[in-house]
Amino acid sequence: MSKTELKLYQSNGSPNCRRVRIYLAEKGICASTIPVDLAAKEQFSDAYAAINPRRVVPTLVLGDGTAIGEVPAIWRYLEEAYPDRPLIGNTPREKALATMWERQVELEGFNPTMEAVRNAAPVLKGRAIAGSHDYEQIPALVERGKRRVKDFYADFNARLAEVGFVAGDFFSIADITAMVTVDFATKALSLPIPNDHMALRRWYELISSRPGIAA
Amino acid sequence: MSKTELKLYQSNGSPNCRRVRIYLAEKGICASTIPVDLAAKEQFSDAYAAINPRRVVPTLVLGDGTAIGEVPAIWRYLEEAYPDRPLIGNTPREKALATMWERQVELEGFNPTMEAVRNAAPVLKGRAIAGSHDYEQIPALVERGKRRVKDFYADFNARLAEVGFVAGDFFSIADITAMVTVDFATKALSLPIPNDHMALRRWYELISSRPGIAA
Repeated sequence: MSKTELKLYQSNGSPNCRRVRIYLAEKGICASTIPVDLAAKEQFSDAYAAINPRRVVPTLVLGDGTAIGEVPAIWRYLEEAYPDRPLIGNTPREKALATMWERQVELEGFNPTMEAVRNAAPVLKGRAIAGSHDYEQIPALVERGKRRVKDFYADFNARLAEVGFVAGDFFSIADITAMVTVDFATKALSLPIPNDHMALRRWYELISSRPGIAA
Repeated sequence: MSKTELKLYQSNGSPNCRRVRIYLAEKGICASTIPVDLAAKEQFSDAYAAINPRRVVPTLVLGDGTAIGEVPAIWRYLEEAYPDRPLIGNTPREKALATMWERQVELEGFNPTMEAVRNAAPVLKGRAIAGSHDYEQIPALVERGKRRVKDFYADFNARLAEVGFVAGDFFSIADITAMVTVDFATKALSLPIPNDHMALRRWYELISSRPGIAA
């Protein structure tokens, strides 16, 4: 299996896809990107469902045809296959800390942002949850999601007053998910980092200067 | 750091803790378990918050004092430190597949079960989401959660008609989370596997016979 045969099915506007694009750029891994047109509901086509039965982006397809969905699983494959420039820590302890903090950012920042957006957008009526099944929007989740994003900002401002990166003293997938969360909450919910959250703003400026972040 | 110094802060009734207990039993890893009394709200004590600022169980504390929260992060540490009897796959491809399927079970089965329970239980009023912040229950999430559990059963019945284990042809963390989900949905939501879901029932019988599953 040639590593050069990696194919990433993705959409430029999808925050989950951006989590993988930044990872690839930071590692210097080349993958052919294949666009999936979410506005045209291409993820529900038979062709895409054959690759990803959950009908979500992104999907990484390996040279042997194995299709890997879910961002942490894609990262896991790539980190094993391309160990240089580790982004999930170096030691068992660091790997656990990167995994823990990335998940905490996802649970407390990324997921509430997505939930607030999906339960509000008229175009997602009847599609409040990504995946194979249709579920109606629940308006109460919009306000709750926004409140949770504000709590996330306050909690991680406190965290980043004590450490340089989300997982501690090394750049990791936890910073990637936090960065994608801030940018998407700013754009889709008009919730930028509050001005008085100085540590979080300082971290954001630092991370923004990395070349892979524009991916 | 001695591996024998592992301490697991946990509660017997917590499904998240059971995910770790089964993993430890299947691997044959010994850890001292330290009970956290959730009924007495011990997770909100200053002593526990110093170990896990999110105030959730379980937490694994290593010999050097490092505290690891979040089930996938605890598994990640243990799988690195104790590579024998792999439960997250053997190769990069298998590791990615185990991670993908375990996450899919969590998103589509485990999380909806927990959401339905947390938004219904009178004792959890004002505590609909585990963690440091208080959020009110949303009754609509109870019915949605139950519907999602039924969709999960149907989808994974179809999957297990084609493969022996959730992640394919090897036992993994994906089976552990699926098992904990079925047992908790049965007990807390009165949602057992439907009688006509033959493949899922066959899988359940097979997994139930493993010695570690009673953990």
